[in-house]
Amino acid sequence: MMKVAVVGAGSWGSTMASMLAPRAETTVWARSPDLAEAINAGQNPTYLPGVNLAKELSATSVLDTALEGADVVVMAVPSHGYRAVLEQGAKIITAKTPIVSLSKGIEQGTLMRMTEVTADVLPDHDVERIGVLTGPNLAAEIIAGQPAATVVAVRDHETALMLQDLFTSLMFRVYTNPDVVGAETAGATKNVMAIAAGMADGLGFGLNTRATLITRALAEMTRLGVAMGGQTATFAGLAGMGDLVATCFSDQSRNHRVGFGLGKGKTVDEVVSEMNMVAEGVKSTRGILDLADRHGVEMPITEQVARVLYDGAAVPDAILALMGRAARPEVEH
Amino acid sequence: MMKVAVVGAGSWGSTMASMLAPRAETTVWARSPDLAEAINAGQNPTYLPGVNLAKELSATSVLDTALEGADVVVMAVPSHGYRAVLEQGAKIITAKTPIVSLSKGIEQGTLMRMTEVTADVLPDHDVERIGVLTGPNLAAEIIAGQPAATVVAVRDHETALMLQDLFTSLMFRVYTNPDVVGAETAGATKNVMAIAAGMADGLGFGLNTRATLITRALAEMTRLGVAMGGQTATFAGLAGMGDLVATCFSDQSRNHRVGFGLGKGKTVDEVVSEMNMVAEGVKSTRGILDLADRHGVEMPITEQVARVLYDGAAVPDAILALMGRAARPEVEH
Repeated sequence: MMKVAVVGAGSWGSTMASMLAPRAETTVWARSPDLAEAINAGQNPTYLPGVNLAKELSATSVLDTALEGADVVVMAVPSHGYRAVLEQGAKIITAKTPIVSLSKGIEQGTLMRMTEVTADVLPDHDVERIGVLTGPNLAAEIIAGQPAATVVAVRDHETALMLQDLFTSLMFRVYTNPDVVGAETAGATKNVMAIAAGMADGLGFGLNTRATLITRALAEMTRLGVAMGGQTATFAGLAGMGDLVATCFSDQSRNHRVGFGLGKGKTVDEVVSEMNMVAEGVKSTRGILDLADRHGVEMPITEQVARVLYDGAAVPDAILALMGRAARPEVEH
Repeated sequence: MMKVAVVGAGSWGSTMASMLAPRAETTVWARSPDLAEAINAGQNPTYLPGVNLAKELSATSVLDTALEGADVVVMAVPSHGYRAVLEQGAKIITAKTPIVSLSKGIEQGTLMRMTEVTADVLPDHDVERIGVLTGPNLAAEIIAGQPAATVVAVRDHETALMLQDLFTSLMFRVYTNPDVVGAETAGATKNVMAIAAGMADGLGFGLNTRATLITRALAEMTRLGVAMGGQTATFAGLAGMGDLVATCFSDQSRNHRVGFGLGKGKTVDEVVSEMNMVAEGVKSTRGILDLADRHGVEMPITEQVARVLYDGAAVPDAILALMGRAARPEVEH
């Protein structure tokens, strides 16, 4: 039986660990000993209250114990803690072990994606086996057994097939994709767009506005991803459009909730302090803009979200600034 | 002042006519003299109950009166009545007059798009000035003054700019696009996908499922459109993704409501008889499949919708048939 380490016991890490546990020997690492104990008793009251986890799942707060002998490492810590946790476990992970990131964000300062952080922390690791799992995967629905699909992006084809087989279940379909850059950039940028969608909703706008915003958002995400070496097709797929649509329509999405609160007139501090989890987009918007700058790409929606988050701009002004852009040919004549 | 004829007084035709009336001399044609009279009195109680229309708008049930001297003809009749109405007015429309279709469907039997029907009925008309207006435009939100964007697809560039100027308002942004085939095919096929999304919702599935379905739906629509000569970029834009997202999330969408009822276990006859408006997708699904067949394109979602609509298949079986397809690479390694 394959051995899997899931590093991080937030809602998504716990969900994936619980899904894997019946088919692979799965250990989830929780930073808090109390949380590890609770998971071993069958529930994760902090991040998945009321949900019964797979009885085969075991948890530990000792990182080395989770990683020891793992055939696959699944990284499920938020982007701001990713490097530190991986450094702590680095000596245990062997160079050929597939490492799959579930984290969606950009490291502040370095502007690295999580697979780049992984390669940076583990310079001798086989980079072809460092990948991401990403798609329209709201944890609460997955754990309720609703049908969903996702993408495993990793360059080594054998590894892709192995991970596809590992993660696939009757209700969870896994597509492979070699475009790590595209899949990961899509996952990081969509959080910013979910904030923008939340703002429009908070202002009371409806579906036309949201659909328009999402369409222009995907165009903007694709421009950045392609400039960074990703493929357009990845953005048109589950990791791009699929995840964007799910996140921008979800009341469960932390980023959407941040935007919604801002649209209702709350301040950033008020909105953030009301949540007990991190909204990735609040931190990563600046990094995305810096990446856009580095690659010479225009990202008007991201710019407006940054104005609201960091410069105190009012949401109606930001939305009007977007609407006020001169209408242009959508496709050139 | 420019003179505009809007042919058809359904919810969308009336909405566009009311938007245009303050800036152009606009006459809307309603088949029913009673409805024309009601619109002249300020409301359209059949299709936009409770909404006050622009006071400048005039209505008539005499088609020739609406068309006489029109600088622009806007066709807003459902696809099954499009040809007959246009034939009736054909002799009044001069060959250089831009004709813009708001209708989203395929003519049964001929499998023609509405711009093709137009050119067929008016063989001497300048085809470069026959186009469509399409995008994420739920009528109720537009008439409430919410921000939205749309696409005018027409081949002649001067005509595109004129129509852009005519239709643009502060809250309604108009993008031009020369890809008539793509924009129109997107508009016709999305109705089928809205039925599929409604089915999934009716079964009680959530956002992951819907986002996955929409993503695969856009891929399927794009395959057909490109095979017919359309452009991928049009499908990634407002006429494709934008309209698809708005329609698939809208409780106002007639097609979505049909799917939802079917997902809840009602029969096609029950669902259709409960509605006082036509759900375009119920009629056009067969035509879309025939087009797919003609162009050698696989459309698995459309096939399953057709099985439910025409062959009495159960919705859970149709959805399971989609989920059961072998998982494949999303992008080839």
